[in-house]
Amino acid sequence: MEKPTLPKGTRDFGPAVMAKRQFIFETIKGVFQKFGFQPLETPAMESLSTLTGKYGEEGDQLLFKILNSGDFLKDVDAATLESKNSKQLSFAVSEKGLRYDLTVPFARFVVMNRHEISFPFKRYQIQPVWRGDRPAKARYREFYQCDADVVGTDSLICEAEIILMITDVFKGLNITDYTIKINHRGILSGIAESIQAKQNETALFVAIDKLDKIGVDKVKEELRPKGFSEENLTALFDILNVKGSTTNKIAFLQSRFDTSENGQKGLRDLQEVFTLLKSYNASDKHVEFDVSLARGLSYYTGCIFEVKINHVGIGSVSGGGRYDNLTKAFGDKENLSGVGFSFGVDRIYDAMEELSLFSKGTQASSKVLVCHFDDDSRYYGLGVLSALREEGIASEIYPDQVKLKKQLDFANKKAIPYAIVIGPEEAASGQLAFKDMEKGEQQKLTLAQIISTLK
Amino acid sequence: MEKPTLPKGTRDFGPAVMAKRQFIFETIKGVFQKFGFQPLETPAMESLSTLTGKYGEEGDQLLFKILNSGDFLKDVDAATLESKNSKQLSFAVSEKGLRYDLTVPFARFVVMNRHEISFPFKRYQIQPVWRGDRPAKARYREFYQCDADVVGTDSLICEAEIILMITDVFKGLNITDYTIKINHRGILSGIAESIQAKQNETALFVAIDKLDKIGVDKVKEELRPKGFSEENLTALFDILNVKGSTTNKIAFLQSRFDTSENGQKGLRDLQEVFTLLKSYNASDKHVEFDVSLARGLSYYTGCIFEVKINHVGIGSVSGGGRYDNLTKAFGDKENLSGVGFSFGVDRIYDAMEELSLFSKGTQASSKVLVCHFDDDSRYYGLGVLSALREEGIASEIYPDQVKLKKQLDFANKKAIPYAIVIGPEEAASGQLAFKDMEKGEQQKLTLAQIISTLK
Repeated sequence: MEKPTLPKGTRDFGPAVMAKRQFIFETIKGVFQKFGFQPLETPAMESLSTLTGKYGEEGDQLLFKILNSGDFLKDVDAATLESKNSKQLSFAVSEKGLRYDLTVPFARFVVMNRHEISFPFKRYQIQPVWRGDRPAKARYREFYQCDADVVGTDSLICEAEIILMITDVFKGLNITDYTIKINHRGILSGIAESIQAKQNETALFVAIDKLDKIGVDKVKEELRPKGFSEENLTALFDILNVKGSTTNKIAFLQSRFDTSENGQKGLRDLQEVFTLLKSYNASDKHVEFDVSLARGLSYYTGCIFEVKINHVGIGSVSGGGRYDNLTKAFGDKENLSGVGFSFGVDRIYDAMEELSLFSKGTQASSKVLVCHFDDDSRYYGLGVLSALREEGIASEIYPDQVKLKKQLDFANKKAIPYAIVIGPEEAASGQLAFKDMEKGEQQKLTLAQIISTLK
Repeated sequence: MEKPTLPKGTRDFGPAVMAKRQFIFETIKGVFQKFGFQPLETPAMESLSTLTGKYGEEGDQLLFKILNSGDFLKDVDAATLESKNSKQLSFAVSEKGLRYDLTVPFARFVVMNRHEISFPFKRYQIQPVWRGDRPAKARYREFYQCDADVVGTDSLICEAEIILMITDVFKGLNITDYTIKINHRGILSGIAESIQAKQNETALFVAIDKLDKIGVDKVKEELRPKGFSEENLTALFDILNVKGSTTNKIAFLQSRFDTSENGQKGLRDLQEVFTLLKSYNASDKHVEFDVSLARGLSYYTGCIFEVKINHVGIGSVSGGGRYDNLTKAFGDKENLSGVGFSFGVDRIYDAMEELSLFSKGTQASSKVLVCHFDDDSRYYGLGVLSALREEGIASEIYPDQVKLKKQLDFANKKAIPYAIVIGPEEAASGQLAFKDMEKGEQQKLTLAQIISTLK
């Protein structure tokens, strides 16, 4: 029999990795809850009618489809079968798919439960998603998303709180060197308008979005054949090259946007977000107004965010923005304005490993291993174990009668930091051998003394 | 456009339900970790070669299969297509399925990582599983399992600790009236041997397992055509009707098992488990030795457990046992003895609702809503919010400028227990209106006083 394998692009998370991942998840969850966000979970499977058409043609191709149960071919006509058209057949034999992100299921939930929800609705959702992407380094077919969204208000307080939450999460994770880039859809429109390229907005934003990656020359190269004159491009980079403080940048753009209502609105919103941060007594030192930030532009309608951890070879670890049409795709007439963002846990994990930010304590192992010389000591050890656990101290006993060395090796391999060694003498006197596995030091203590040392 | 729907047998978990579910999950996780179990997560998708043949023919039919990505029909031959045989085609167009339980993925993990694992390996796993069952009351197509297993030791300490963990979890959940039934595969074999039905063991165990549900007469009816004489049946029920304390039952069975080595082993193991519980200073008052307990017999080789919450109309909420062949299905030669059990969270949830065991505090909402009379008070409120959150108090502000009544209604609907109301006067004096939403009482307090009240 062949050794079993994992489907490509998927991973097991063993204890050591899980402990670190749990630390990240718990930190994020704690911040979401502190900011009044409430948990939501949706099923892994959604109707294909819910998923299809929401992620563009490329997204549709990356959906994992689930074969209908039972005799799924029963009602498929011969022509469909004979055509050998995979796409056509897939809709005949599959009506469910795996969730591709958390936003569409959230929108579906809001539409289905609109009358029970108290708006503004602040929900967070931490669940895996699946995409049939070609697996590559740091690209998986199953990965977690951690989303927080507020819908039903257009208050910029929500934008400010996104910045506060990112700051708070990174503080909890000990990540200190990072940048929260912020921009606004209105400002991007303002740029397009001010360089007389309003009709050509989409091409412009797609190119600008790549500026970081491909540089000025390539962006120009991309824009020239799309109808941008040298004059346009000079005007464009005159704006994109704006430097200085946020106040400076806003003042500069104000002078360019005098005829762009969109641009003015964008600048006002941005200014208000910075004003709000001050009212929160919050620092904006990690926040950078980046005129060239243009992510997911077809989707976002207001502020846009993107977060990078500096000096690590990893892309953005968080992003989001405001949208005005969450539920429109489900035929909802009343548009709900919302704003949300998402943490990429896999990337945060990689960055933290690269920066050695996980403390040694980040491991989901017992704190104490109870070791024993013989059968009677082992029975005695069970009472010790109960007393430790009664105090909430995670602990275990080596279950079998084996040599002490093997028991202590086991503690070392599992990174259990303390051992209590019990022999006939210890059992008789109640003075137990308490061993610090890292230092290799050992002392005789009563159980009560051990417990107070450990707590 | 039609309103979106959920695939049948699946559920959304909104904030109120999530808070209660999280309470159950956190309680279980806390106990698992206190007992030295380490977390594992495996992918939702497994190769069909990993899943198929592990759950019997019925189980195979309930697997959700995932269509291969891309042009999945490309290499399918015409004959397979024309046969219109769903089963045959499914293997040609699908090589992955959704996990059906957590045991098979765990076994796969152990086989793939055998050389990195320190045995005995104590792992817990809390993840959803998927089964294409016909949806019914309390039967879902997606549901969570919470498993804990130890592999690599046959020490009965593990069995004793399963009882301790169940007791500890139920204590944490405030479930007081429940029964942990325990039996042993050896005892079942002993019964078969002592009534001269060794050749007919499987039929016997299947029938015994139904005793609770269908009663004595129906069990007899089922066994007669399978070659059980009246003499056999009399001898059987003579044993199954054994009453009294565990000691009594063991003594009685010992007299019947004098020629059954399996039976004797079963009794010895059981006795040792009770002895171990005493060494843990643990009560066995919830533990009942049930001679007729015979769950999943083809799988288990030692002790068997099943837990029922008494006086609720819900089946068993936890179960498990010892097995000796976890990794055999993957061609592993060296058999690993293991013992494990699983909590059924959906059933525990239902039972707790039925018994009204969730405390009012079990809700993932903010503790405080900051309310405001005008724009300046709202800005002032942001500083208040920061101070509350700094102290770890989950809180939020009503983000929009609306009437106070609407803000307080919002707090009530979301079950936020306290509101801080800020107007120009409060902002000027620093004496804020602090309102207990349930009692409807309000007092003027400084921010510092409010924080110390809330903590």
